[in-house]
Amino acid sequence: MINTICAISTARGGAIGIVRVSGPDAISYTDRIFSSPIGKKLIDAKPYTVHYGQIVDEDDIIDEVLVTVFRAPHSYTGEDSTEIACHGSSYILQRTIEALVRQGCALAKPGEYTQRAFLNGKMDLSQAEAVADLIASSSAASHRIALQQMRGGYSQKLHSLRNRLLEMASLLELELDFSEEDVEFAERHQLANLLEEIKLEITRLTSTFQLGNALKNGVPVAIIGAPNVGKSTLLNRFLREDRAIVSDIQGTTRDAIEDTITLQGILFRFIDTAGIRHTDDTIEKLGIERSIRAAEKAQIIILITEPGVPYPHIPLRADQTVIRVVNKTEAFQALTGKGIDELERQLVAAVPSTETDELLVTNVRHYEALTLALADISRALSSLQNGLSGDLVAEDLRFGLSHLGEILGVITSDDILANIFSHFCVGK
Amino acid sequence: MINTICAISTARGGAIGIVRVSGPDAISYTDRIFSSPIGKKLIDAKPYTVHYGQIVDEDDIIDEVLVTVFRAPHSYTGEDSTEIACHGSSYILQRTIEALVRQGCALAKPGEYTQRAFLNGKMDLSQAEAVADLIASSSAASHRIALQQMRGGYSQKLHSLRNRLLEMASLLELELDFSEEDVEFAERHQLANLLEEIKLEITRLTSTFQLGNALKNGVPVAIIGAPNVGKSTLLNRFLREDRAIVSDIQGTTRDAIEDTITLQGILFRFIDTAGIRHTDDTIEKLGIERSIRAAEKAQIIILITEPGVPYPHIPLRADQTVIRVVNKTEAFQALTGKGIDELERQLVAAVPSTETDELLVTNVRHYEALTLALADISRALSSLQNGLSGDLVAEDLRFGLSHLGEILGVITSDDILANIFSHFCVGK
Repeated sequence: MINTICAISTARGGAIGIVRVSGPDAISYTDRIFSSPIGKKLIDAKPYTVHYGQIVDEDDIIDEVLVTVFRAPHSYTGEDSTEIACHGSSYILQRTIEALVRQGCALAKPGEYTQRAFLNGKMDLSQAEAVADLIASSSAASHRIALQQMRGGYSQKLHSLRNRLLEMASLLELELDFSEEDVEFAERHQLANLLEEIKLEITRLTSTFQLGNALKNGVPVAIIGAPNVGKSTLLNRFLREDRAIVSDIQGTTRDAIEDTITLQGILFRFIDTAGIRHTDDTIEKLGIERSIRAAEKAQIIILITEPGVPYPHIPLRADQTVIRVVNKTEAFQALTGKGIDELERQLVAAVPSTETDELLVTNVRHYEALTLALADISRALSSLQNGLSGDLVAEDLRFGLSHLGEILGVITSDDILANIFSHFCVGK
Repeated sequence: MINTICAISTARGGAIGIVRVSGPDAISYTDRIFSSPIGKKLIDAKPYTVHYGQIVDEDDIIDEVLVTVFRAPHSYTGEDSTEIACHGSSYILQRTIEALVRQGCALAKPGEYTQRAFLNGKMDLSQAEAVADLIASSSAASHRIALQQMRGGYSQKLHSLRNRLLEMASLLELELDFSEEDVEFAERHQLANLLEEIKLEITRLTSTFQLGNALKNGVPVAIIGAPNVGKSTLLNRFLREDRAIVSDIQGTTRDAIEDTITLQGILFRFIDTAGIRHTDDTIEKLGIERSIRAAEKAQIIILITEPGVPYPHIPLRADQTVIRVVNKTEAFQALTGKGIDELERQLVAAVPSTETDELLVTNVRHYEALTLALADISRALSSLQNGLSGDLVAEDLRFGLSHLGEILGVITSDDILANIFSHFCVGK
């Protein structure tokens, strides 16, 4: 049986705090702690209406509040729901939660509202995941990608791929039912072409993951150079120069505040900056090892040096962009910021530009599922091309369908759900 | 002309973020950045209704939101207002504010919503001040006092006192109009009795200030003792033992997070604890000076010692409660927490208990105005008793009325208002 849950949905310390209640008894439980000056009952209220009154716990008045009433299925969770807007005192919010719990509410687990929205068919799993990304978004790029995914652009694409695979698998399975008659409903050559197309589309999607992930979590940048050439000065210059409207990433689903800057809507994340800051104190050998580790994780490497000092030698990958800077010159001075604009322009230019409506894979879970689906489809294609029997091809297509279905949550398990929603914040 | 203002009213980092818009163009400005899937316009919406749609800035979709519409005078500010509930991303909230500003909204100053509520007669000044106290309240006692003041219990009392003074002053002034006829509308003896009553009531109010202020900001406690008897151990024990539901006071109107504990709904604040923590490192002389300063500011002094060491000698006031503790004994051990329950019981017992509906003065501004009013009334009373002429008495009563009126905001100045509301958080 579905219970009724409650949680504080706003961060501590604001003028307004919101308590959310959702579940079959949401309205009646709220009614029991709500007292309207005109004797109004929330249970009689129309959906999408707001009501002024007091929250009362036993004989104590807790606060004067506004309560919004939502009725199933027209709410975020798809259940009956209320939202109680209190004064933003932690004490008041906590007391309100306690009063609701006394009435029978359970404390919502992290992400439980969104999980219910998913279970009630208000959104698919990739949309649900995008809700957490949206809340955590701190740059124009990460915001755009999360919003697009939440609004279902990404799901549509996957649904369309699944439907095409499903049709194909059904055709092949229909043949099996008529196998004694040796019919072929599906023309092999045409099927192979269709599979090639789908394979191409999934390949394109998986190829966006590196960029998508970088745009979501910040493009990883490593500053590499010999001791004393100005690595930490450059880092500090970047951080001071941060013109982002939002410079700190707080709470929600991200764990730590990192050294990041936002340039033209793109978040850049400096790798191993604690190391950079203390490089000068450590012995050279350790410094080099750390630089190599940082460089491995970076998408953009800033090699910094000064006149008369050679650039450091570190192994590079083909997919990495290297920006070379000679510090302490006429053209560039990390200390004064001279030339920093040009360096920032190069950072931005190193990130592939994306179309506004381009679909990007940002989620590791999706990337893994897509990679598995790709393998399934490649196998199916090769079976088809090698003239193997339809049931083998159909089986691989079913595997592929299942992997695509995992992304959308068509096929899922409690473990997967628990893992996904445990990374949400409480109250969402 | 009144402009339309906007602000983020929730703290950063939650699942939900609220943007508030208030002023004559609040609904039309919000409409211009709001897009409903069914083409609904907020301007046509009934008050107290909630509407689903998108926030759109130029061509960018910023978020999917719920907008609540309020219409003057039935809103917090008394003006047309909207509340936009977004996903709690700082980026989204900031973009929403920027979009509103582009439409013509001004950024709200700290407390400007409440200031407008005051100016529009939705509440008096002492109620407005209580809103900030309520948001900052972190214990049962501070919450109860702030809520009572916001709900007008305190204002009612002051209004009643003012009305009685006003009637008296009017009677006396009426006599002056008829002065040539030498009438006395007001019987002197009866007037004196009435003034005595009022004086008594204001005296009672001012006498609650010390307690009220302590309950609001935390009862100041000093731990005093010789080096190494266990002062810092005891402090750490208290802080570890904090059973408060809310242990940190964040943001809003308070500046710093202090060492506080909440016991049975009462907040205790440890004075000069930085000093206590480092006392053992400093030379004895400095330690004693610091102890004396801490003791001066305390309402409760815990004198701590250990067997064989005499209690420290410090000057004490009659209004201070002293609790003596011998550490490192069978009965009490700060290190293990043995006996701490009894010590905490004594702390709670040292705070005068208050009736649930007892009016307490918590605000320095109110205390000062009441003290001035008391002086005015005492002068009036003495003039009356010495048979001085009615106009002198009436003048003092007018001064008293004016001082009481300052608390309620009947009489006020831009400076006073600016000072009061600048201590609010933005968004309230």
